[in-house]
Amino acid sequence: MATGETPTRGYTATKDQLQTRLARIEGQVRGIDRMVADDRYCIDILTQISAVQAALDKVALGLLDGHVRHCVAEGTQEGKGEEMSTELMAAVGRLMRRG
Amino acid sequence: MATGETPTRGYTATKDQLQTRLARIEGQVRGIDRMVADDRYCIDILTQISAVQAALDKVALGLLDGHVRHCVAEGTQEGKGEEMSTELMAAVGRLMRRG
Amino acid sequence: MATGETPTRGYTATKDQLQTRLARIEGQVRGIDRMVADDRYCIDILTQISAVQAALDKVALGLLDGHVRHCVAEGTQEGKGEEMSTELMAAVGRLMRRG
Amino acid sequence: MATGETPTRGYTATKDQLQTRLARIEGQVRGIDRMVADDRYCIDILTQISAVQAALDKVALGLLDGHVRHCVAEGTQEGKGEEMSTELMAAVGRLMRRG
Repeated sequence: MATGETPTRGYTATKDQLQTRLARIEGQVRGIDRMVADDRYCIDILTQISAVQAALDKVALGLLDGHVRHCVAEGTQEGKGEEMSTELMAAVGRLMRRG
Repeated sequence: MATGETPTRGYTATKDQLQTRLARIEGQVRGIDRMVADDRYCIDILTQISAVQAALDKVALGLLDGHVRHCVAEGTQEGKGEEMSTELMAAVGRLMRRG
Repeated sequence: MATGETPTRGYTATKDQLQTRLARIEGQVRGIDRMVADDRYCIDILTQISAVQAALDKVALGLLDGHVRHCVAEGTQEGKGEEMSTELMAAVGRLMRRG
Repeated sequence: MATGETPTRGYTATKDQLQTRLARIEGQVRGIDRMVADDRYCIDILTQISAVQAALDKVALGLLDGHVRHCVAEGTQEGKGEEMSTELMAAVGRLMRRG
């Protein structure tokens, strides 16, 4: 049966804001593509890439924050603290080293 | 009338490949937005963000590489080496600290 | 007289290993200083700096891991979850942007 | 006979300053070790690690800057531009991804 039980996530309360940010980042990447199409100066393109990286870092930190506050807190009470910590640390490690 | 004098950039020779990569990154960001819309698990979204950041780092390194090989080499011969080094280092600094 | 009540930290169980790592990192930095004293090639010095950064990242991730497993878990049960999450995210943000 | 022909490096002109910085970083790492020995709070230790990483990034950027200005400029005139660019980009890549 089709009831869409929406799971609650760490970002549920700020989902709209998150999607606005992602749409803006998508636009920034499209802008970079246009700069390349227009043969713009390398350094100016690199500056825009840094701006996108900073914006993605912000989104990632927001997601991590919600995840820790909601999911990890909940998981700890359900005895899944260890598992969730491992998972969280792997995600932080990927963000620190970028991929 | 508008003569389209296309400036040669460090990435001119690999412009198509660069645009393909950027289009793929744009698609990845759109995919992240969709994951949020679908209330997907925080950690899975973070993994995708790391992937986008790694892809952007690759694009940035490619641009830097072309810039150093072409523009900086040329600039050095034209006596603009100092100026271009300063500009280059500022760009590298922004990439290292992300914005 | 003042009994030194040792507080338990997230890293208490792995304190020896942590100190061994830090001593090694200290030695690596000293090695870099010696490379400079010996007028070694810039790129070789940079490679060593990257190695130290990677080693510091590992130490940081280990500390974060212990902190989340012990302190945050404990804090959550004592109702200090919010405060600790804020503090944790600030630390992760500093690590991601390096300072 | 003992003449130490000292090679000129990109950092030769600022060698003293560089060594002062490295000595300070070494001291900072030693301070972190002491914090661990004293069972200090995880988050405070992490803050110091971020500070060391920021200081190392600064040293790295200074080295890169000198390398580009001196070695790469010189290399370009000697026809070793390609080789040096490849080497430089590898170093930047390691710094961006940290090791």
